[in-house]
Order: sequence, then structure tokens, then C-alpha cells
Amino acid sequence: MRTGGPADGADSSGDGPNGPARGSSSSPTSPRSSREWCVDSGAHGYPFRPSLKCPYCDLVLTQVIVLNGGSSSGKSGIVRCLQAVLPDPWLALGTDTLVDAMPASLRASDAGIEFAADGEVTVGPEFRTLEAAWIEGVAAMARAGARVIVDEVFLGGADSQRRWQKALGELRVLWVGVRCDGAVAAGREIARGDRVVGMAASQADVVHRGIVYDLEVDTSHAESLECARAIAAQVS
Amino acid sequence: MRTGGPADGADSSGDGPNGPARGSSSSPTSPRSSREWCVDSGAHGYPFRPSLKCPYCDLVLTQVIVLNGGSSSGKSGIVRCLQAVLPDPWLALGTDTLVDAMPASLRASDAGIEFAADGEVTVGPEFRTLEAAWIEGVAAMARAGARVIVDEVFLGGADSQRRWQKALGELRVLWVGVRCDGAVAAGREIARGDRVVGMAASQADVVHRGIVYDLEVDTSHAESLECARAIAAQVS
Amino acid sequence: MRTGGPADGADSSGDGPNGPARGSSSSPTSPRSSREWCVDSGAHGYPFRPSLKCPYCDLVLTQVIVLNGGSSSGKSGIVRCLQAVLPDPWLALGTDTLVDAMPASLRASDAGIEFAADGEVTVGPEFRTLEAAWIEGVAAMARAGARVIVDEVFLGGADSQRRWQKALGELRVLWVGVRCDGAVAAGREIARGDRVVGMAASQADVVHRGIVYDLEVDTSHAESLECARAIAAQVS
Amino acid sequence: MRTGGPADGADSSGDGPNGPARGSSSSPTSPRSSREWCVDSGAHGYPFRPSLKCPYCDLVLTQVIVLNGGSSSGKSGIVRCLQAVLPDPWLALGTDTLVDAMPASLRASDAGIEFAADGEVTVGPEFRTLEAAWIEGVAAMARAGARVIVDEVFLGGADSQRRWQKALGELRVLWVGVRCDGAVAAGREIARGDRVVGMAASQADVVHRGIVYDLEVDTSHAESLECARAIAAQVS
Repeated sequence: MRTGGPADGADSSGDGPNGPARGSSSSPTSPRSSREWCVDSGAHGYPFRPSLKCPYCDLVLTQVIVLNGGSSSGKSGIVRCLQAVLPDPWLALGTDTLVDAMPASLRASDAGIEFAADGEVTVGPEFRTLEAAWIEGVAAMARAGARVIVDEVFLGGADSQRRWQKALGELRVLWVGVRCDGAVAAGREIARGDRVVGMAASQADVVHRGIVYDLEVDTSHAESLECARAIAAQVS
Repeated sequence: MRTGGPADGADSSGDGPNGPARGSSSSPTSPRSSREWCVDSGAHGYPFRPSLKCPYCDLVLTQVIVLNGGSSSGKSGIVRCLQAVLPDPWLALGTDTLVDAMPASLRASDAGIEFAADGEVTVGPEFRTLEAAWIEGVAAMARAGARVIVDEVFLGGADSQRRWQKALGELRVLWVGVRCDGAVAAGREIARGDRVVGMAASQADVVHRGIVYDLEVDTSHAESLECARAIAAQVS
Repeated sequence: MRTGGPADGADSSGDGPNGPARGSSSSPTSPRSSREWCVDSGAHGYPFRPSLKCPYCDLVLTQVIVLNGGSSSGKSGIVRCLQAVLPDPWLALGTDTLVDAMPASLRASDAGIEFAADGEVTVGPEFRTLEAAWIEGVAAMARAGARVIVDEVFLGGADSQRRWQKALGELRVLWVGVRCDGAVAAGREIARGDRVVGMAASQADVVHRGIVYDLEVDTSHAESLECARAIAAQVS
Repeated sequence: MRTGGPADGADSSGDGPNGPARGSSSSPTSPRSSREWCVDSGAHGYPFRPSLKCPYCDLVLTQVIVLNGGSSSGKSGIVRCLQAVLPDPWLALGTDTLVDAMPASLRASDAGIEFAADGEVTVGPEFRTLEAAWIEGVAAMARAGARVIVDEVFLGGADSQRRWQKALGELRVLWVGVRCDGAVAAGREIARGDRVVGMAASQADVVHRGIVYDLEVDTSHAESLECARAIAAQVS
């Protein structure tokens, strides 16, 4: 996992989505390794910390997990499993939360978001304006001490990721790609019965183009809970 | 409607929930009345403004509408009607959004939120911590240019309102009380069939104790759409 | 309330929806009035009876309640209140149950059911075929001892009622019209936010044309629970 | 697939869940094989037939598909896929439909159905009475010409199957077991987030004890759509 934004040190290899990685070495005089402390802290009931800083080292704990994947790739299931396996309580917010918060009139209009009969999704200017404010607000929740899992569909590819990167700034973010074979996702879309058929296939690859991740999982052959455990292992 | 917080001028009568009211008189040299401009702006398609400031006067448009009322008082219906009748797009967020975003484990625990068989709702420390960050984030969305309707249940009475007032600060807020006769709300709770029976009756009065409003509506004998129109008339 | 079908006696005025009304006078030698017995039976825990016949008289208890009304007229709320206030357990089934049971492909096709953007609902031949079998099955449930509340939208007017009358045959049915002023229903449709806007207005009157009821309620100015109590008072 | 009940011929091996299997050989003078006809009939738009009998042979088409499996085994997903891949329209009904139709008071009571905190489900006498009538009604729908997929949880094991066998009588039924490894189902239960945790594990094996199937599918490693295709291949 790598930290993001201008607050980062200049000391590192830096090919991650947030730019240069923060060094995570603990002080040699630390009574125990920072890693050990941070892992233990949740399990042993250390009170939930707004600062999210480990008192024994300068490691900043993961503050935001961003999951990106196409419709019916299994993100929501992974999010609920993550909330169950991570020792601290995390808020789960995402594109669906935002769309539900919009006026009904924006949900089928050129200005808002449109779901065509073939599964194509188009987003208009009023949607983008509200989305920009929404992203700022989610970042502010993380700065105010909530640990947040963001469940996203990067329809705009690298531009979408940049919007989040800019808002999340110095926050420590884990970027996760949720892959699912297009044909498998299309089958699950039929099985769910509550999505416009065609979204899964049309989004399966395009949402990952140009995105840089810390970690990728593939739900084609792995259960949500397995994926969640793999992600949780990268959360500090 | 009155504005809130320390940024307000000291010029006014100030018995509103946000403290002193901001003067809303337009400049005498203004080519048209500020009110006219602001009303027209939405209807005539003036682009959605992050600044929410009227170019002809110093009136700041309403940025947040907070609706407070007990369970089954009809808040959600009013919110959807408000989104339909207000000319600009408003985001609707509330207690239900927050509870849905929490881990399942916090939804029936001493640390989170508990819905007892008799309808009593108890909120624990971990819920409060996440809620505080959530409130900060919603305020940040409004500062970033989204107009936001907040659908709340002030279980903590005046303390609950103070938490929001503090976070919303200088933002221009319309505080709305949604009343509903306890017996009527209890009947609607049965008709909905998806709420713990007893919440409506136990919350009907208690959530309004000590709260100061700009406007109150009563759904006992008025339809959601009528209430929404009365509220919309107070939105600048 | 009137009984239906060929089992009816020839003694009566017969302007009810089921044809001639059955006399409800109890035998003079009955140890107590049939009415008293039947009312007591539920309250005092007399075991749920598949035959639904009162042992002291020839009164057949109400076996089916059919509620007919337009979209957003408030039928579902009344149904849940009826289930709460009636002493015996009643099954609630209706058009929504049937539509949910259909394949997704029939939910937007000429052969199935179509919800146009303006709220018009069109029903095709394959929908009608499955519906006919569904109605037979619901009638069979009542014959097998379940007391059933049917929540219907008679888009076909008197023809729709005739389909149900034919299937329900000799069963004792209470026909209830659920009226709601078109403008009020249209406002509630906006407040619900989960229905195609326009259905409420277009169905408000048309679904009642040519229908004969035992009882009508109007939700424009009465709560669901009040309406349910008025209906329950007619259930024997 | 085997037919059920007393109407069956005495000509066959009979180890299926419905007793003796009906011969499915077509007449040698048939202009084309019965199988070919029946498969074509749906695809080529032959009108939906209440009798469900092939005019060229004595083959009776499958009238009911009963899927039995534990909570979170993936039955509902398979049902929606079946509705999508089968050429005729099939109604989907099941335990969830029945539970939703019950009064709220029966959903947490000794007389109705109870979901304990550990996932145990207990069913009381009033639930059983309504369920018996429900089963009769579903069978009547199939007799009246609807093809029906039943989505069931045989909590009572072989007794549960016998109740359905008795009601379905002479109807041609395809009995399908939906297996899912208990640990996998438990993980999916967490991922769904809308079920009492523990149901999946406690039901995974017990619902299959003593049940005889025509076909079994296992969702542990196969997608819903694959399972649906395997089942559809057995539907005549």
C-alpha cells in the first residue's frame, strides 16, 4: 500500500497510484514493531482513533480503501465481507449511495445519469457537479476520523481515479481493482435480476483502463470473503 | 430562514436556530430584486453554482435543509417531494444513509445502534464516532457546492442539533421540524410494515424537545407534497 | 358482505358483486348468535379452521377480501393494517406478487406487462395466461383453508372483476373499493419515489368503472389503519 | 425427470422421487421425435399451452420445477437464470413469497416462523396451516396451465418433500437439489448482508437429508447460469 499526495516523502520507489510510497520503517527504539502494534491495536480493543496514527511510530494507518470494478463484478459483496473481517468499524459508501441520493429526475436525463437499454451508462454535467462535491465530502469524512471503504465504478477511467486522488490528497489510500471476467459478470447480472442487462459486459474491462492499483482481486473464481481477506491483509 | 455560525454579522434579531439572522436586503442599486433573481435563476436554467452566491446581491442561497422528525413522521416522503419541486438538484442524505453505511455488526450492538423490541433506539460510542465524521463530511459536501437535504432523527434532542450546527458553521441552513401526531405515526408504522413497532410512538415528541426551527410542518393532516411546497417556499 | 356463486340461495335482493346475498340469520335454536360465536372464535383462540364454518350455525366466514384500487391509492398499507387488526392470520397476495413472480423478460414486453413513461400499463397475452392460472391458484388456497387478502388493480374494469368472481365461485368474498383522489395519489406517487410517475393519476378512476363493491374506503382523508378497521368490521 | 402420483403408469423402474417413471418414448409413427417437437415448440412461438401436451406424442411437458437448498445456496439466482434461459415464461414462487405474504406477527412468533440469533429457523402450527393451503394453491396454478418454479427450503427434510409430492400429485415435476458447501454458503451469507448469520451453515446439509432428486447442482464451484443451463437441459 502506498500513501498519496504532496505530503509524501521523496524517499521512495513510487510506482503506486498515489505516487511515492511513504517509508514504513519504525524507529529502532520503538518498543515493538509498528506493524505489530497497528495490527494488535484493533484486535486488542485500542480505542478507535480519529488521528489514525500509531503512537510508537510514524506509520499512518490506511484511511480509505477504494474498490473499483464494473457492475456485477462483486464489489458490494466484498465490501460487506471487509466490514465483517476488519477489526475496526469502516463506513461503506459508493456510487450507489450517491445515485440513491440524487433526485429521481437526474436518474434518467441527459443532465444526470442515464442507463440505456443496452447497459451503456452516460453521466451528465449536473451529475458531475454533485459527484465532485460528494467526493470532497467523503474525503472530509476520512480526515475527520472515519475509515471509509469506497465502492466505485470508474466509467471515466484514469480521469475518474484522478478526481479521487486529488480529493483524497494526503490521506493514506489502498487502491483495489476488482476484476471479473465479462462473461461471468454477465451471468451474475442475470442471476441478480435487478440490473439493466448489458452493464456488466460493457463495463468489465473499460473501468480498469489506465488505473493503477496497489492490489487486484478477481472474483471470477474466488469468493467475496477470500477477496476481502486478501485486501484486509494489506490494510495497515 | 437564518444563517448559522460565527461568520454571521452582528446586526440582527437572532432568535433563530443558527443564531443572528443575516440581513437579506438587496442593494438599492441592484438592477432587480435579489429574490427575483434567485427564484429565476433555477427556473431559467442559470448554471448550477458552487458558490451559491447571487451575482446581484449579497444573499447567500440556502445550502442545507435539515429535516428533523421521529420515525414514520413522513420525512422521507417530504424529501423526495422536495427534490421534485425544487428547481436545482439537491442531494438527499440522512440517518438511514449512515446506518446503511455502517458494518452489520454495529447494527445490533452496544457499541453501535440497537433497535429494541419496544422501539427504543440506543446509540453507542462507535456509532457516535462515525456519525461525527459523517456530519463533517456532509457539511464539506455543502461547502463544495452541493445543495443537501439532511433527513435526521434528533434522538439526543438539542445536543443532536448542536452537533450539526457546529459542523455546518457558516453555511446557510433551513431548519425544519416534521411533526406527526404519535397515534397517527404509529398507525403508519403498521402500514409500512418494515419498521420495529413502537419507534414511531416513542420518538414522536422526544426528538423535538429543545430544538429551534425556522419552519415546522405537520404531516398528521397534510400530504408530503403540500409540506414540501411549504418548505420550498422558504428556500432562497 | 355477500357470498358468491351457485351455492347462494334465491332469497335475496342480489345487487352485490357476487350476485344474490346469502341470508345471514342464524337458526333460532342456536345456543348463541352465530355472529357472537364467529367474533369470539378468533379472539378466544379457537383453532384456525380449514372449513371456516361456524359449528353453531350455517354462516360461512369471510374467506377472501379483494381490495381494488389504483396505483398509490394506499392498498398495500391497508393490507398490512388488516393483517395486524384481524384476529386470524390472513395471507396477503396481489398483483405485485404476480408481477414479481414473472420472468424479467415479460416485465417490459408486448407479451407481458409494460409500464410506459407516462404511467400507462399494458398487459399482453402471456401475462393474461399466467394471471389466469395465478387467480385459479389463489382461489384454491382459499378453498384449502387459507384466508386470503387480494390486493388488485382492475385495469380491465368489470372484466377484471368477472375473472376473479368466476375463479372464486362459491367462496365468501368481501369486495372492497379503495378510492383515492387522483391528485392526492399523484402526490403520494412522488413521495414514494419507486413508481413510474403518471400511473396514479391515470388509474385513479378507471379501475373502479363498472365494479360493484360491498364496501368502499377513501384514503384521501383517512389513514390506512382507519380504513382497515372499517373493513375488518365487515369481516365475519 | 419423472412424473408423480397415482396417474403414472405401472411400467417402470421407479426409483425417482415421484415414484415410477413415465415412459418417454414417442410413437414410431410420429412425424418427428417428441423431444424435437417440444424443444421447437417454445422457440418457434407455438402458443403457450394450458394442457402442456405435445400433439405428436404422449409426452407431458415438465409442469413444475422444485429447487430445494439451504439459505444462501444460490437458489434465487438459479431461478432468475432459469426464467431467462427457458423458452416459455415460468412463474417463480417460493418460501420467501410465502413468508412475505404472512402477517408480520407470524414472522417472529411461536405460532409462525422464528429466526433465532444463531440462524435456527422454527416453524409453528399457524405457519404450517397457511403453508399447506399455499402448496395446494401453487399446485392448482400448475394444473391451470402455469409452468411454475418452486424455490424451497425443506427444513422438515423428507416430510417437506412428501407434502409437496402429495399436493403436486399427477403433475410432471423435476426435483432439483441445490447443494453448496456450508463454509462457502456462510461466506456468501456475510457478502449478502441481509440474512441472519448462521442460517447458511445450519441448513447446508440438513435440508437435503432423505430427499430424492432427479438432478443435483452444486453452486460451490459453478455459476448460477451454468446450473440453470444444466437444469433446463432436463426440462421437457
